[in-house]
Amino acid sequence: MRVLLVGAGGVGTAVTRIAARRPFFEVMVVADYDPARAEAAVAAVADDRFLAERVDAGDETAVAALLTRHGCDVLLNATDPRFVMPLFRAARAAGAGYLDMAMSLSRPHAERPYEECGVKLGDEQFAQAGEWEKDGALALVGMGVEPGLSDVFARYAADELFDEIEEIGIRDGADLTVDGYDFAPSFSIWTTIEECLNPPVVYEKDRGWFTTAPFSEPEVFDFPEGIGPVECVNVEHEEVLLVPRWVDARRVTFKYGLGGEFIDTLKTLHKLGLDSTTPVTVPGPDGPVAVSPRDVVAASLPDPATLGDRMRGKTCAGTWVRGVKDGRPREVYLYHVVDNEWSMAEYGSQAVVWQTALNPVVALELLATGAWSGSGVLGPEAFPARPFLDLLTEYGSPWGLREQ
Amino acid sequence: MRVLLVGAGGVGTAVTRIAARRPFFEVMVVADYDPARAEAAVAAVADDRFLAERVDAGDETAVAALLTRHGCDVLLNATDPRFVMPLFRAARAAGAGYLDMAMSLSRPHAERPYEECGVKLGDEQFAQAGEWEKDGALALVGMGVEPGLSDVFARYAADELFDEIEEIGIRDGADLTVDGYDFAPSFSIWTTIEECLNPPVVYEKDRGWFTTAPFSEPEVFDFPEGIGPVECVNVEHEEVLLVPRWVDARRVTFKYGLGGEFIDTLKTLHKLGLDSTTPVTVPGPDGPVAVSPRDVVAASLPDPATLGDRMRGKTCAGTWVRGVKDGRPREVYLYHVVDNEWSMAEYGSQAVVWQTALNPVVALELLATGAWSGSGVLGPEAFPARPFLDLLTEYGSPWGLREQ
Repeated sequence: MRVLLVGAGGVGTAVTRIAARRPFFEVMVVADYDPARAEAAVAAVADDRFLAERVDAGDETAVAALLTRHGCDVLLNATDPRFVMPLFRAARAAGAGYLDMAMSLSRPHAERPYEECGVKLGDEQFAQAGEWEKDGALALVGMGVEPGLSDVFARYAADELFDEIEEIGIRDGADLTVDGYDFAPSFSIWTTIEECLNPPVVYEKDRGWFTTAPFSEPEVFDFPEGIGPVECVNVEHEEVLLVPRWVDARRVTFKYGLGGEFIDTLKTLHKLGLDSTTPVTVPGPDGPVAVSPRDVVAASLPDPATLGDRMRGKTCAGTWVRGVKDGRPREVYLYHVVDNEWSMAEYGSQAVVWQTALNPVVALELLATGAWSGSGVLGPEAFPARPFLDLLTEYGSPWGLREQ
Repeated sequence: MRVLLVGAGGVGTAVTRIAARRPFFEVMVVADYDPARAEAAVAAVADDRFLAERVDAGDETAVAALLTRHGCDVLLNATDPRFVMPLFRAARAAGAGYLDMAMSLSRPHAERPYEECGVKLGDEQFAQAGEWEKDGALALVGMGVEPGLSDVFARYAADELFDEIEEIGIRDGADLTVDGYDFAPSFSIWTTIEECLNPPVVYEKDRGWFTTAPFSEPEVFDFPEGIGPVECVNVEHEEVLLVPRWVDARRVTFKYGLGGEFIDTLKTLHKLGLDSTTPVTVPGPDGPVAVSPRDVVAASLPDPATLGDRMRGKTCAGTWVRGVKDGRPREVYLYHVVDNEWSMAEYGSQAVVWQTALNPVVALELLATGAWSGSGVLGPEAFPARPFLDLLTEYGSPWGLREQ
């Protein structure tokens, strides 16, 4: 297998460190807009299967040419979600397969944003499913940890743990803190604002997909391995769009364990208009300048990618499922926990970033060995779950199951 | 009396509208950095005692020349507190009197900012008191509503209501709301951040002046005329520095009725570093630019000066005094309430702005008639209170007294 990895930020760099320990591929081309980042990632793994290139992820023609030049079978997208569509189209144009860890972006409903869906996450990609299928090509979308591993858990529950599923609820929580900071998000605040202030999407079998107001249906979820109870709220997330396409469930939700303080902070930013990306005019050193308030918020906080060695605690991704097995009610939480101290010591990567990067590497290996195969635009739950979960354990990062 | 009014913003414009109804002065020169603002204020009063000029409040020489050219007796400073010192020095240089509604700025103590005072509000002005006194010239500082009327109330309480004063606590609260906005401060957010995040100052007779952490000693104060209970906290304010110089009291505090929501908002801004005036670098239309996060917060909110006709409710400034009269404990609240609907209808000025502008006009009239006279750098409490309070009532805006 020959892979083009686009994006050598935190997640892309962790992908190289995880993949370097596995024999399933011949070449991994690491391409970034900033060649120094690509070169640094390649230099760090000291493995001659890796090589660095410069590419603009928004330039479809250049990306397609790079795929062709290196004879790549597959493009792994580790950039931010704004580049999903150009990279997805570039892979198609070059006849390569495609993997990402998010999906094409949503747009709220123009009149009823907190009741009805507008353009949904992934709609633009699924609209092209026919063309991928016709050519026997595969786009595996949402293949990070959440979405990704969380979707694999949903499929596993449907296949092996339940006869009937009432509700599938992805629940994400952590107890990460950063030494020396009162407030330091462990993930991009820019993206967190985007996720949390977009109308959350919910799926119900008899109603389809619909939206609610931000921060709806708060609940306290008790996370495993010592993380404990964290306040969770509905958030727009890919699993709600993916799971119902392949798994039969009456209801699908995603709740993010932001915690009370973080929720209040996001609400305040929204109230003041500081979540906005519409520029405001302020004095600059050479006269008035127009800047995005959200960019200023991000610039005022420490960069989470640089905080790994000051961070303590664990992050947990998982899928809570309620239903019936052998005529009896059952409720389980399938989960994957990463301790930041461990991921920093073992891979030099912060826990949240490392956990995201792990899963697409496992998926690439399953595709390389033929354990997973398919065509069209597919989510992780379109494939058998057992081989994925077994290989995850083989990678040294086992998952857990809690009956509740 | 010939007056130079510097600053034709909200407060300066209200000064012209209030003064225009009074006969005590011959000329009021209205000067602003933006000549259009000065001209608009002058045009609106349609009174040939007023004339417009352009001046940079930071240019002492130009201000002194303007005072001399128009033969002004007194400079009334209606600019923001950064211009206190240049205007104070310009008045001195031209041999004119000086009035302002704030005082020279403070700087926190370098090592123990939340325990000890560094440079206090007004220190720079009081340092020059000897020179003013020697020449028989008067600088009347802190002569707005708070400081200003609140200090007059303190003097009145000492002269007429108490034999001994235990505590004088300025208490400021409002029930103003702005139609169409979830969150719209009725006063400059830039200045509010400055006031609220500076270490609050407290005076105790046996300890002198000292500071506390921001938002200290929260209490719920019940404001009169239907405003009701509002959460108040210690804030750095001029009265605490002025009152003890002329009025004997064991303790002097200033508490601002910010309300719980506003306090939480300011705490969040501080936690995120968005109160900072140290520039951060963000993408701009022509490459990276350095901007002050606090400027971006201000630019993201509506301009309070433009909100008068969408605002509802009342604002209350006042002085709570606890002590002994005729051997019996006594507690009173002396206050002044302005209803925004009334001030908009009567003067076209928003309540908070109008209430600030009213008091220096009353003081100018007392100086013009000789009811008030003095030399040096003096606060409002250095003068007899009764003539001021009587003239306030004559201006159509009476004050109140609540025994409690």
